[in-house]
Amino acid sequence: MASYHKPDEKTLQGLKDIANKLRINSIKATCASNSGHPTSCCSAAELMSVLFFHTMRYKPNDPRNQCNDRFVMSKGHAAPILYAAWAEAGYVKECELLNLRKIDCELEGHPTPKLAFVDVATGSLGQGLGAACGMAYTGKHFDKSSYRVYCMLGDGECSEGSVWEAMAFASLYQLDNLVAILDVNRLGQSEAAPLKHDMEVYRKRCESFGWNTYVVDGHDVEELCKALWQAQQVKGKPTCIVAKTFKGKGLKDIEDMDNWHGKPIPKDRVDQLLADLKAQIQAPDKHLSPEVPKEDTPPADLTPIRLPAPPAYNLGDKMATRRAYGTALAKMGQASPRVVGLDGDTKNSTFSDVFRKAHPDRYIECFIAEQNMVSVAIGCATRDRTVAFASTFAAFFSRAYDQIRMAAISQSNVNLVGSHCGVSIGEDGPSQMALEDLAMFRAVPTCTVFYPSDAVSTERAVELAANTKGICFIRTSRPESKVLYPPEEKFELGQAKVVRQSDSDKVTVIGAGVTLHEALTAADELASEGVNIRVIDPFTIKPLDAATIVSSARATGGRIITVEDHYKEGGLGEAVLSAVGEEPGIVVTRLAVTRVPQSGKPQELLDLYGISAKHIVAAVRQTFAN
Amino acid sequence: MASYHKPDEKTLQGLKDIANKLRINSIKATCASNSGHPTSCCSAAELMSVLFFHTMRYKPNDPRNQCNDRFVMSKGHAAPILYAAWAEAGYVKECELLNLRKIDCELEGHPTPKLAFVDVATGSLGQGLGAACGMAYTGKHFDKSSYRVYCMLGDGECSEGSVWEAMAFASLYQLDNLVAILDVNRLGQSEAAPLKHDMEVYRKRCESFGWNTYVVDGHDVEELCKALWQAQQVKGKPTCIVAKTFKGKGLKDIEDMDNWHGKPIPKDRVDQLLADLKAQIQAPDKHLSPEVPKEDTPPADLTPIRLPAPPAYNLGDKMATRRAYGTALAKMGQASPRVVGLDGDTKNSTFSDVFRKAHPDRYIECFIAEQNMVSVAIGCATRDRTVAFASTFAAFFSRAYDQIRMAAISQSNVNLVGSHCGVSIGEDGPSQMALEDLAMFRAVPTCTVFYPSDAVSTERAVELAANTKGICFIRTSRPESKVLYPPEEKFELGQAKVVRQSDSDKVTVIGAGVTLHEALTAADELASEGVNIRVIDPFTIKPLDAATIVSSARATGGRIITVEDHYKEGGLGEAVLSAVGEEPGIVVTRLAVTRVPQSGKPQELLDLYGISAKHIVAAVRQTFAN
Repeated sequence: MASYHKPDEKTLQGLKDIANKLRINSIKATCASNSGHPTSCCSAAELMSVLFFHTMRYKPNDPRNQCNDRFVMSKGHAAPILYAAWAEAGYVKECELLNLRKIDCELEGHPTPKLAFVDVATGSLGQGLGAACGMAYTGKHFDKSSYRVYCMLGDGECSEGSVWEAMAFASLYQLDNLVAILDVNRLGQSEAAPLKHDMEVYRKRCESFGWNTYVVDGHDVEELCKALWQAQQVKGKPTCIVAKTFKGKGLKDIEDMDNWHGKPIPKDRVDQLLADLKAQIQAPDKHLSPEVPKEDTPPADLTPIRLPAPPAYNLGDKMATRRAYGTALAKMGQASPRVVGLDGDTKNSTFSDVFRKAHPDRYIECFIAEQNMVSVAIGCATRDRTVAFASTFAAFFSRAYDQIRMAAISQSNVNLVGSHCGVSIGEDGPSQMALEDLAMFRAVPTCTVFYPSDAVSTERAVELAANTKGICFIRTSRPESKVLYPPEEKFELGQAKVVRQSDSDKVTVIGAGVTLHEALTAADELASEGVNIRVIDPFTIKPLDAATIVSSARATGGRIITVEDHYKEGGLGEAVLSAVGEEPGIVVTRLAVTRVPQSGKPQELLDLYGISAKHIVAAVRQTFAN
Repeated sequence: MASYHKPDEKTLQGLKDIANKLRINSIKATCASNSGHPTSCCSAAELMSVLFFHTMRYKPNDPRNQCNDRFVMSKGHAAPILYAAWAEAGYVKECELLNLRKIDCELEGHPTPKLAFVDVATGSLGQGLGAACGMAYTGKHFDKSSYRVYCMLGDGECSEGSVWEAMAFASLYQLDNLVAILDVNRLGQSEAAPLKHDMEVYRKRCESFGWNTYVVDGHDVEELCKALWQAQQVKGKPTCIVAKTFKGKGLKDIEDMDNWHGKPIPKDRVDQLLADLKAQIQAPDKHLSPEVPKEDTPPADLTPIRLPAPPAYNLGDKMATRRAYGTALAKMGQASPRVVGLDGDTKNSTFSDVFRKAHPDRYIECFIAEQNMVSVAIGCATRDRTVAFASTFAAFFSRAYDQIRMAAISQSNVNLVGSHCGVSIGEDGPSQMALEDLAMFRAVPTCTVFYPSDAVSTERAVELAANTKGICFIRTSRPESKVLYPPEEKFELGQAKVVRQSDSDKVTVIGAGVTLHEALTAADELASEGVNIRVIDPFTIKPLDAATIVSSARATGGRIITVEDHYKEGGLGEAVLSAVGEEPGIVVTRLAVTRVPQSGKPQELLDLYGISAKHIVAAVRQTFAN
């Protein structure tokens, strides 16, 4: 085993000097912006100094190099010290720090990947460690590379359960390339954090969650050098450095005091405080350079991934779209080693199990911890290392909505697949029914929302999602339904299919998933009475094919009926309203679930909530009556 | 200290018999419905028997009596054994159990409060303990009563971080009237749970989170009686009973085996298995009665709560609606001791701190754990014990969307107040901006969505929310804005205010919060050019005042412009589209945020994202040009 060599005094002083330089730049930047969190930066100054200029291996001029160690600033409000560290490293111009939080500057209030040295946006607390887990899992199991992952958390955010989901995950998968650093500065935003400076409780919690844990003085650079070195030696366990620090450390009459969260230093005090800090710097012009990383990670492969064979279904076959998802993902896994799958102990329901069986070494079981599953998937997908698909019941993505919201800010390309949508799941009842997922995902700005209605289009949705930038959500259904399209049918984002039409269509009916099939049944019944309707499968709800919808509406007397297995707000119906809202003369009638549903047989529930064929028939007739 | 007396052999045998009766009824019910989770029930049979027929004090014929001990079945998929327990207690008819999961039966797949013995719906895992914390906090600190709270969790759901948020909360607040029972049956849905039967790791985790912890044999009724008795003696700490159990216990060739999650017993095996269980019952006709509760809790007070004085603002005063919220809640607290406030370490930003200062004994600091905060608030509001208001940044309610979704199924009357909506918060950047909250809350079926635009209407929103059934969400804003209404102005749900109108209005503009004020600025500018517009303040986004909007649109040439500090999907604009979607001849132009925003000054960002007065002016002119 390697033995530890204490850094020489010059290096230690250099690290101390850098810590104070980082403090100074954090204070200057937040004074210039007249907002921000200088005291949250000051507690982390020695931690940042040692991490960036002693422990971590990276190329300062190429922050997103695939071989670099990763760093996640989970306590995102300490952004100024992150920016200051990259200024000290030479990547950010020091003068640019003074443009913090300004409209023409990418140094925002909280870090985002607009900056090359940021992999995931932070600022909603408790999310960094899950993403770091995904990066560390990828480094260890997929890239099989030596880069390591460091994540700095605040003590306040340790109240977030998502942190403990990540803690459990990291130890279960023995992520010994992962180090969490807890900056325990005692003070939250509005009062002290619950554990204050009770370092032993932190130690016990971390150890009980399976982590190698060191409690250290977070302002002692020598102690930090040693603990971080020890972390590199440990095998089979992630390491947590629990650092006792003081908020506003180094700032007289501010350090460790209440009511300084998120406040810049007052103008009448800043000069003296900066002078105090400067006075402690022994070699202001000396810079320390990080060690270079080992070159053992290949560049990301960005070639498109195509289904190795067309969908193997015949028209009229019965197949649930959730099951088609599993088959599709397994095929995509065959096409590229970059495809990875994740699930939250629902793999036998979402059918991600088909992928797991085909590619066991690329499947990550995340157990019943959806927030962490989404964060891990986001982490896996950073720097284009993998093409990640994470699945669970669509309803349970509501558990991770904050993570999904943040994933958009992170410019993530993660793919999320939700099964068991709507009342058509039947007996399990409302807790298992996704009825707000379309609303949820539509309101995520980078998100593409697929809602395939048969097995063939599901396979194409998976293929398209793998190659589409931004977040992709695929909504799959539990019941079996007929295959509607031939294997060679082409699908594109924002391109609807007109699945039933004639020269004399009276109404345009738009359904998706089970309700598209109900619409087709309704069309058959109406046709037998001599009434023709046009039926549209939108395929993607976002982007929605406004052109096809508007032209169909125009061809059918301006009449549209939407029918969806979703609440009336934010789903298919409102997406259609949005598409036609500026078109005069189009009237949209919407059939949707309008109250909390209950248990029952799928078809009974479609009837009870007014979205079955018979209600579509009635709505069509009603449209005429008007 | 009281000393423990072992129950007599007859009682112990009675409890064993009941456990097997519960198993039998769980199996029969799931066979009758041909779906459900009998093996998840069987692991919990002795736990349920001892809890319901030895430990808990309640009135079997009055399950929602305020004096009863509470029971939360967090592992909601074990619903059949909960129903079986209430059948054994005499409240549910045994024959009704066979209607499990049927459309005309309230014994649904997962428990909901349609049943008087259920306080909160479960089925999305990991949520029961947080609600139980709210009930226990209420019992101890508000009701100051002797009822106790029991919550049964599965081991699989212990992967959910929300469980650990609740664990930290319960110990911090010394909830010694709370008992968690972990049914560690080893097996999850698709494979073994991560800790399997490693009882010592469970013990360490629970202890490190501050709980008095007993590891027991979950099938040994005597051991359970003793541990639950001990739990009653402990002061200052909640107790966790970590019970080692076997999934499918008592079912030959099924017990402790993989692939039996969520599967009814096959028809060809059920008779033999039922016979095996029956054979173990020594006194099939003997019933045990629970102890009655202490009558030390008054009935719930259901009288309406009114502001003790009208809003004390003058027209034109500058006041942020977030600040008006704090004042309003403090006043409501003065009006009724039932009003309680919760926050997640943002009280100095949401201004719930004003309430805390006025009523410190009715404020619950929940720290940075929004899921748990919402669950605790839901728990506090059960059985109408309190009128609970929980606040944080509106963006961070996305962290608790699953809890909010479930709150609707729980028929909860919880009130949630989200500050810092939209890009108008400015420098902090997108992670802190709520831009999907309206979409989120609109898609919750029981939810009323308030979006007050000045301090007076904010006070009235708080007053209305306190007295409105279902979930209420109040969206408050960070910037100061002018008071628009006199103190005596009346506000009602679904009643908009026309804040600017003339006989010659060309367009109806609908804004809310900061964008209403932008609309008024635009109106002034346009008026100076001789163009009049009608401006509407919707007050509630759900329900939305369709009548006023449609009649205004008709009076302004069918032209509507909506402007909102929210993403374009699911917010004000789509709510308006929904209101007018079936009205021919109305055209809606929508101004909204259409991409991930950034840091900057509030007014700069309103401009950058196209929702400021100048964009409204341009949109009005454009409407004409068409």
